[in-house]
Amino acid sequence: MTRIATRPLNAAAFAPFGDVLEAKGAPDMLINQGRCARYHDRAALDFTDGRAGISLFDAEPRRLPCRISLLERHPLGSQCFVPMTGNPFLVVVAEDDSGAPGPVHAFLTAPGQAINFHRGTWHGVLTPLHAPGLFAVIDRIGAGGNLEEVRLREEITIIRGR
Amino acid sequence: MTRIATRPLNAAAFAPFGDVLEAKGAPDMLINQGRCARYHDRAALDFTDGRAGISLFDAEPRRLPCRISLLERHPLGSQCFVPMTGNPFLVVVAEDDSGAPGPVHAFLTAPGQAINFHRGTWHGVLTPLHAPGLFAVIDRIGAGGNLEEVRLREEITIIRGR
Repeated sequence: MTRIATRPLNAAAFAPFGDVLEAKGAPDMLINQGRCARYHDRAALDFTDGRAGISLFDAEPRRLPCRISLLERHPLGSQCFVPMTGNPFLVVVAEDDSGAPGPVHAFLTAPGQAINFHRGTWHGVLTPLHAPGLFAVIDRIGAGGNLEEVRLREEITIIRGR
Repeated sequence: MTRIATRPLNAAAFAPFGDVLEAKGAPDMLINQGRCARYHDRAALDFTDGRAGISLFDAEPRRLPCRISLLERHPLGSQCFVPMTGNPFLVVVAEDDSGAPGPVHAFLTAPGQAINFHRGTWHGVLTPLHAPGLFAVIDRIGAGGNLEEVRLREEITIIRGR
């Protein structure tokens, strides 16, 4: 069975798959008389035949090591996950290989990081590691099939990396 | 000096000002083989001459009692605040009185609640009560003046209600 170790999430490593949103480095502006730092417009929202909407997801927490047997992607829209707790979560993505999932990568977020999957990025289902598994999700609201699911020929085990 | 006591935030009381987003009651759908509840499309996004964007705000925490001397509103767009911690925050809003802030109301969120101010709602600046004061903000990205600020003739003190 293939084992993949998590890596700490950072913007450079995640760039092929999406955006990392975090209040890190110099803010784009200071507002509210200097009392609030704004990191401006940090997600590439991208919706075909639809509009942005905000939903809440309450997902069952998992534990590492964790088996992954299914990957999915959304051909019509980006999908942003904002954790509503300070707990890290697991992010599993795959490169695309001629329309099917290719090599898989696993990332562990740090507190304060949100992610935005680019449209069409292969990814695992939402995988919190702590309760409550509560997220705000900014994704496409619209008609039409926006979910492709692929069951992996062989399960993958995600283990905690260094 | 006027004192206003916080009330617990709930959707009915907040309806004149915006939406409360929370994973409460029956979800709209179960996804990921039943492992995730989706509370679907819970914010009335409303942008004039602009588009939705996701920014992060890192705001200085305040303490109750807390003095408010400034209210603001955004004539061109709704503004959603998603806390990235499980900590409650203070939400101050005002009714509109012929284009100026009227009676003020103060709400204290519960863990897991996010809010979306409707376009044009008078509100106080972002007021976390705990560090880090970290929020994802879904608001209007676009040109043009989208901020009206009003300095109150008399400061208001927000005190913790029951």
